[in-house]
Amino acid sequence: MELIAELLHITAGGRSIAILSEETASSLGVRSSDRIRITHNKNEAIAIANIAAHFPENRVGLYEEIATILNVKEDEKIDAQLAQLPESLSHVRAKVRGERLRETDIQNIVKDVVERHLSEVEIAAFLTALNIHGSSMSENEALSKAMVETGKTLDFGKTPILDKHSVGGIPGDKTSLIVIPIVAAAGYTIPKTSSRAITSPAGTADRMETLCPVNLTIKEIRETVDKTNGCLVWGGSLELAPADDLFIKVEYPLGIDPLLLPSIMSKKKAIGATHIVIDIPTGGGAKIKTRTEAYLLASDFVDLGKRLGMTIQCAITFGEQPLGYAIGPALEAKEALETLKGQGPPDLIDKATTLSGMLFEMLGVKNGKRKAENILVSGKADKKLREIISNQGGNPKIKPEEIAIGDKVTQVKAKQAGRVLWISTENTVQIAREAGAPKEKGAGIVLKAKLGDAVRKGSVLFEIYAERNEKMESALELANRLQPFVLSRKAEERMLLDQVPAKVTREKGFMLER
Amino acid sequence: MELIAELLHITAGGRSIAILSEETASSLGVRSSDRIRITHNKNEAIAIANIAAHFPENRVGLYEEIATILNVKEDEKIDAQLAQLPESLSHVRAKVRGERLRETDIQNIVKDVVERHLSEVEIAAFLTALNIHGSSMSENEALSKAMVETGKTLDFGKTPILDKHSVGGIPGDKTSLIVIPIVAAAGYTIPKTSSRAITSPAGTADRMETLCPVNLTIKEIRETVDKTNGCLVWGGSLELAPADDLFIKVEYPLGIDPLLLPSIMSKKKAIGATHIVIDIPTGGGAKIKTRTEAYLLASDFVDLGKRLGMTIQCAITFGEQPLGYAIGPALEAKEALETLKGQGPPDLIDKATTLSGMLFEMLGVKNGKRKAENILVSGKADKKLREIISNQGGNPKIKPEEIAIGDKVTQVKAKQAGRVLWISTENTVQIAREAGAPKEKGAGIVLKAKLGDAVRKGSVLFEIYAERNEKMESALELANRLQPFVLSRKAEERMLLDQVPAKVTREKGFMLER
Repeated sequence: MELIAELLHITAGGRSIAILSEETASSLGVRSSDRIRITHNKNEAIAIANIAAHFPENRVGLYEEIATILNVKEDEKIDAQLAQLPESLSHVRAKVRGERLRETDIQNIVKDVVERHLSEVEIAAFLTALNIHGSSMSENEALSKAMVETGKTLDFGKTPILDKHSVGGIPGDKTSLIVIPIVAAAGYTIPKTSSRAITSPAGTADRMETLCPVNLTIKEIRETVDKTNGCLVWGGSLELAPADDLFIKVEYPLGIDPLLLPSIMSKKKAIGATHIVIDIPTGGGAKIKTRTEAYLLASDFVDLGKRLGMTIQCAITFGEQPLGYAIGPALEAKEALETLKGQGPPDLIDKATTLSGMLFEMLGVKNGKRKAENILVSGKADKKLREIISNQGGNPKIKPEEIAIGDKVTQVKAKQAGRVLWISTENTVQIAREAGAPKEKGAGIVLKAKLGDAVRKGSVLFEIYAERNEKMESALELANRLQPFVLSRKAEERMLLDQVPAKVTREKGFMLER
Repeated sequence: MELIAELLHITAGGRSIAILSEETASSLGVRSSDRIRITHNKNEAIAIANIAAHFPENRVGLYEEIATILNVKEDEKIDAQLAQLPESLSHVRAKVRGERLRETDIQNIVKDVVERHLSEVEIAAFLTALNIHGSSMSENEALSKAMVETGKTLDFGKTPILDKHSVGGIPGDKTSLIVIPIVAAAGYTIPKTSSRAITSPAGTADRMETLCPVNLTIKEIRETVDKTNGCLVWGGSLELAPADDLFIKVEYPLGIDPLLLPSIMSKKKAIGATHIVIDIPTGGGAKIKTRTEAYLLASDFVDLGKRLGMTIQCAITFGEQPLGYAIGPALEAKEALETLKGQGPPDLIDKATTLSGMLFEMLGVKNGKRKAENILVSGKADKKLREIISNQGGNPKIKPEEIAIGDKVTQVKAKQAGRVLWISTENTVQIAREAGAPKEKGAGIVLKAKLGDAVRKGSVLFEIYAERNEKMESALELANRLQPFVLSRKAEERMLLDQVPAKVTREKGFMLER
């Protein structure tokens, strides 16, 4: 049926959408969400029909994505026909019915997600069904592979390629900034891609960005890794497993995460990793709450790794409090540089050398942790990070005290004497974010006491850093309301952990990035 | 945060959407699907954030819906803040986890669906979860009530109010055009709202529309019913249970129908029905395939009706072939008028008088079917339909032969002698649609043989009617490919019912409207 193109002059966020009036849709036999095949000269596009109540008759509204494919101008004629629903939609429906999907079914779905032939409604149904019915290890394998195949991949032309990943969960986790240089200094290749914070106060990319650019091209990554054995870059624009970004977008409002395993493993496979240590922080305020959950997840990672030809070891780590003392991009980068100079907090040093050591031992090295400690103490890791900073375009001579941190500082003090019995990781996250992190890189908090420390009444529990006064004020107000430290002389003196309904309504939950 | 309004000058199909650039969203701490509260002067709107890659910084793109609420002009300043996610979303998440929802939870969800505070992704997750986990009868009751409360209702100021509904399933089902005048002629009030065909060749509204207007206002419906006791109108624009239309839109691509019960019952409650007969056509080509399914559904209808204060009886009817002979809006209206004049096919007469009789007996009448037959034979029902046609604005004197049907006619003949063993209802639907129905009202097919009839080689099985030659050609081609009639002298001579893969790929499945 011949229709007139009406260009909308805005993008649809990558979606393939065409707008029709109710009458025009009815003439075409098209319902909302049906597919239409639009042709103009020799160009063809499949679009998902959106039906609008007040759209002109016999016209089709085209967002820029489709208009570009068709190379059509305002008021030109196009031909529109009802097209078949994509085959992948029948597999989505099968998953809703609880069926197991075959590898080809999953390839179909992932391909159509990336090529935008499935709508967000259909992706939501798929993810909801996956979340409820679960996915078999064969399905996870197929999902991982399909997510790799539909994106770009990196090939460094050598083996082994090491990697370290955290499923996320505790604030202040700057371990990668120590592990990467230790491993690279030992002569192994470890190209680390990471994410920016969205609901946390700092992602590894945010921390590293206070030291050097992280938004590298694939070519620049290869050059950096060729010269230094490692890198610490933002993975967001590299189009490694792009299906995952589309899945995450749909999962986010639903608070579900059925693709945790394939999501992580596809990104690792796409950079060619062969040996990976996966950190699973475990604790009440972390993503993984209990040891049982952690062991189940770990065994799934190992199994899926084997299927994908990767050697995986998982570290189940203590996740009941922030790691180290600093939280916030610049404060954490500063703490990482201090740690590389031998002045780091013991939990951070222990975690970084343990994870590095696990990687070494996976490659046959005896006493890997000792080797990692030696590299750290020798200053070789510090030197290596500075090489990486230099190759990514930063200043390799930066001193910890030169990193720009917020110049507004306020101390939050203990209202009573006692021992630190509990620190709410969620509350520290909220306060650091309220202070401006991760957007304002110098904002955050620095703990002055950790679990088990004895504090006197009036001694400092933590400091808040901000770049702007109004942020400081609202962070301080939140800190006073939330009281993230629980103090008492003995555990039995303070049994109340939280109260329901909550003392404060959270604007937004702390959701962990992957 | 202050932003500049960028008016997009198109509607978002009722959705509450605001577009932000990635940078601007990040400054606001907003992820895609987060809610933002936008204020301008004293106007406030909550919008769902859509994040676009190439949108200008520090601007917010507003579709007409939101721009109208805010009364904002191009380039004016507005204030945007991250808003809390709606409470209803936590109930959606609870349903995804498999929890039973309370009445207030469901009210929240339905209200936010109608007010567009839940996105289609979130509605898709809710419906998928409902489809997988199922809904309890209490949940169905709450859903029905909430769907009524969020829409308009009709009150005729008297009781009883009768109604007849079919869950759909077989083509040619023009029963309502006979039942409504029979019941109204008996002095009972029966205001029938119905739908237009979307994937079938004709809906009751399409059939009636060949006789008179069906797009009446609530006021016009009341006037018609006051004068004639009945009406046969299109329910689509009356805003009865509008949540249902939004649910259907999301369910459609997913091929799921978890709200069948509350969907139907809310529409009945909204028009104030007190006594309802529900037709459940049962057969291999119908929506309900087996007797077992039919009985389960029927008992749910009766139970839900009781909870909502409505008396329900269900008729489980034969659904293995089209009803009567005619398929297509005008052809069916013609057959209905002939039936009211005493020249109807026996299955249509039996079904219409049976359903009318069930309604009569629900009100205490003895031998209801006999009463219905008497009214039909006496010509009172014919007279009544003409009163209704007149009051709805049509010509009450129209003769069956005056109804405009397609002037292109082709006969499809038997290639062998035999008895009609099977008629594919789906195939007849596809052929009638290919001929132009429901859009071209005179198009459709007329069967010349039905199940059990003996035919000779070369005798006519069915006729195709079309308004345009090209439609006739493609309908005929499809008819020759599909061969909807299975002929054989005895059942055992022809065991093959269908073959896999199918002989022909169907452009679109026949989905039944509700």
